[in-house]
Amino acid sequence: MAERATDTGDMPADEFRTYGHQLIDWIADHFEHIDHTPVLPAVKPGDISKRLPEDAPGVGESMDAILADIDRVIMPGVTQWNHPDFFAYFSITGSGPGILGDLLSTALNVNGMLWKTCPSATELEQVVLAWLRRMLGLPDSFWGIVYDTASVSTMHALAAAREQLEMQIRDRGMAGRAELPVLRVYTSDQAHSSVEKAAITLGFGHENVVKIPSDEAFRMRPEALAEAIRADRARGYQPVCVVATVGTTSTTSIDPVPAIAGICEAEELWLHVDGAYGGSAAVVPEMQQVLAGCERADSLVVNPHKWLFVPIDFSAFYTRKPEVLKRAFSLIPEYLRTPEDTEVENYMDYGIQLGRRFRALKLWFVLRYFGREGLADRIRHHMNLARTVARKIEAHPTFQLMAPVPFSTLCFRAKPDGMEDGEELNAFNERLLTAVNERRDVFFSHTRLRGQYVIRMAIGNLRTTAHHVDHAWDLVAKTYQELSGNR
Amino acid sequence: MAERATDTGDMPADEFRTYGHQLIDWIADHFEHIDHTPVLPAVKPGDISKRLPEDAPGVGESMDAILADIDRVIMPGVTQWNHPDFFAYFSITGSGPGILGDLLSTALNVNGMLWKTCPSATELEQVVLAWLRRMLGLPDSFWGIVYDTASVSTMHALAAAREQLEMQIRDRGMAGRAELPVLRVYTSDQAHSSVEKAAITLGFGHENVVKIPSDEAFRMRPEALAEAIRADRARGYQPVCVVATVGTTSTTSIDPVPAIAGICEAEELWLHVDGAYGGSAAVVPEMQQVLAGCERADSLVVNPHKWLFVPIDFSAFYTRKPEVLKRAFSLIPEYLRTPEDTEVENYMDYGIQLGRRFRALKLWFVLRYFGREGLADRIRHHMNLARTVARKIEAHPTFQLMAPVPFSTLCFRAKPDGMEDGEELNAFNERLLTAVNERRDVFFSHTRLRGQYVIRMAIGNLRTTAHHVDHAWDLVAKTYQELSGNR
Repeated sequence: MAERATDTGDMPADEFRTYGHQLIDWIADHFEHIDHTPVLPAVKPGDISKRLPEDAPGVGESMDAILADIDRVIMPGVTQWNHPDFFAYFSITGSGPGILGDLLSTALNVNGMLWKTCPSATELEQVVLAWLRRMLGLPDSFWGIVYDTASVSTMHALAAAREQLEMQIRDRGMAGRAELPVLRVYTSDQAHSSVEKAAITLGFGHENVVKIPSDEAFRMRPEALAEAIRADRARGYQPVCVVATVGTTSTTSIDPVPAIAGICEAEELWLHVDGAYGGSAAVVPEMQQVLAGCERADSLVVNPHKWLFVPIDFSAFYTRKPEVLKRAFSLIPEYLRTPEDTEVENYMDYGIQLGRRFRALKLWFVLRYFGREGLADRIRHHMNLARTVARKIEAHPTFQLMAPVPFSTLCFRAKPDGMEDGEELNAFNERLLTAVNERRDVFFSHTRLRGQYVIRMAIGNLRTTAHHVDHAWDLVAKTYQELSGNR
Repeated sequence: MAERATDTGDMPADEFRTYGHQLIDWIADHFEHIDHTPVLPAVKPGDISKRLPEDAPGVGESMDAILADIDRVIMPGVTQWNHPDFFAYFSITGSGPGILGDLLSTALNVNGMLWKTCPSATELEQVVLAWLRRMLGLPDSFWGIVYDTASVSTMHALAAAREQLEMQIRDRGMAGRAELPVLRVYTSDQAHSSVEKAAITLGFGHENVVKIPSDEAFRMRPEALAEAIRADRARGYQPVCVVATVGTTSTTSIDPVPAIAGICEAEELWLHVDGAYGGSAAVVPEMQQVLAGCERADSLVVNPHKWLFVPIDFSAFYTRKPEVLKRAFSLIPEYLRTPEDTEVENYMDYGIQLGRRFRALKLWFVLRYFGREGLADRIRHHMNLARTVARKIEAHPTFQLMAPVPFSTLCFRAKPDGMEDGEELNAFNERLLTAVNERRDVFFSHTRLRGQYVIRMAIGNLRTTAHHVDHAWDLVAKTYQELSGNR
């Protein structure tokens, strides 16, 4: 066994080597056997915490003891997001090269707040975001920054939109100013909850997020947007920002960005596009049209940790107006001034977070290891898998596809004979989903569309093959049969 | 060499094993030889990016090529935050056990937004935050959550304070409401810029952050706070929140929290304590008094990624009023509802970020590996090292300590004979700092105290020994001699 740390030092390098190898082997073994482990854990609330002592140990423990507890304590309660049978929410992958890139970032432990505090972190971030921008077909006028999550990216977009109003909100705030109008944000009734959270945080207010109705394919209706803006202006409200979505969370629908961009240009509103999930598909040349119109957006977010195989967390934010974003957030205390300030980009000037991990490394590893074509092949593959399931659903006498499938996520339900839209049918599908997930070897999630309960199947893990997808669908069909027999 | 990925799959497990071992060895070697490498890189702006191609590769590259570029491209531009001679800003450590815990988190790649989406992530977070809370001597009434950075923690504190006003700001926002008063936040003139960034973000406005003067030891003056609140109320302004600091960024001064808590209680204001750096010292039993009065705070932030050897990013946020925080942020769309919602804690309800890494693992590894006593020994050691430097500064005929040293960070300057306070003296010390850092084998930062330029030396890396500290001080003294000769 390796030597222990001295009283004041770090783990010795030899010990790090020994247990680092063990942990790498554990991870490799885990991936090798992941197919034979359940995707969902079998624990009740409190089951994990009761396996843990009430206090941290007084004296340090061995790495042997700690690593043994991964299997004993942690794994029984892990929902396996890196599992090929994970079809819930958005299916993601922390890929091999992404994990290794992130490991290097953790080991270097830099804070890339300033160029000076790690030139490589700033410059690699600039370079890989330019690589990704070109892969997505976005123009060079888009400047990029990495945030942790799409929620935080969208909050920064809305903050920049607020700054663009030139109402001195940064300096004077919003409260106690009788001259300020009510400020309004527009998004579709299918948009992600992060738009509302951002509006709440920034002080716009929840009720000032105007939910524009969507059409039969769950896309924002531009004429309804134009009408909402008109009505708000007539009431003396100030429209600030429109958030369009490329790949909504429930159905992955694509808002008509060109039409929305036209309205934003005419109305002089900030257009932010939430492409957190769907934007990644634009790395496939024949899918690049999903971002049509986005070159006219003021800002756009794409999350490589969703569908570009980068481990959580990595959100790529692009804007044509970095100077507005900087005006909204830059604040340089004396202790953070450096001699290079005038020649370099200090990313801390563009956001609320001062601490910044070296996240560019993991995207760099992923883009290089898979290459542009390899990434495109993988995304194509997921879309093909989704199409095969869609065909099976459509061919089934009882199941219905409940929305178009523009990417690799499906919304469907069972509709047994004689059951019409309503709570009985909803309850039946909820029971079906619960029964499928209780098997623990697949994991689906759900949503509601116009009041109808539907099951969601998202395909996006690199280990997911046609076999997994067929098996998952067979389980749903089989579970339906069992439930129907029991009705 | 290991097999390559298929057209649609992840890196094969064998290849992950091979290159995982190589990367672990690279990191172990790096730590073994870190003393012989410069802490500061020798690059000019643009030097790193010009070594990188303009586009991501079309076809995937080998891991051999990628790993080779760590040394060729990345390391020449890395400011080594994990280096024993890093004394700038706050000196930190991504410790061996912390790196391994984070590696596991990256590999599992879970999103702990809901209990259901990874029960172990939620429950381990609850458990390790309770361990840390008891180590810090905080009462059980403090509920905890992990955010990424102290900036984000403080923003959540101010958002909860705003929610506590019961002015319907969450729903109705702050703009266009003539009935709302100006909302005011109070902090000392030594507070971190994150307080201002949070106030800007939330729509309080930069000018509504009232900077309370500090005393001769850079501590907030409570009587000045009481007076500022009185004056604001007289003008019809609404005080919302006071942010006190335990360990300010420039001098690590400790605000008189008991007196401030008394004022907040009398005035019914939210008290948030920024203990991002200094709070960690409370794991040393005889230092626990640095958090005196904090049991009366509404919220408190301590960053284990600053001085508890956890890799970036990890900010521990505690509050006695989680229900207020939840009221400020909870928003549950249909697609995130789970059957367990009523029995469990879903951390997504308490913040702006939906995506949540399994950060508890790295703190768990660190607390177990070092143990409570081991951590206390290490923090004591850093404080002892700081005291030895303080004595040398005080004994030196030309150097002056510019602030008390309550933790392990020193502020000092050279004051050559005949030079009085003013820009000449400031410029001299700036030249001194620049000349020291240009050697690249130590890294100090600076600040200004009442207009005086001072050099900061922060001690906090686990590889830093008495030898490193002596050598760093000798370099400063020697460089001073050289500069003085050249005057």
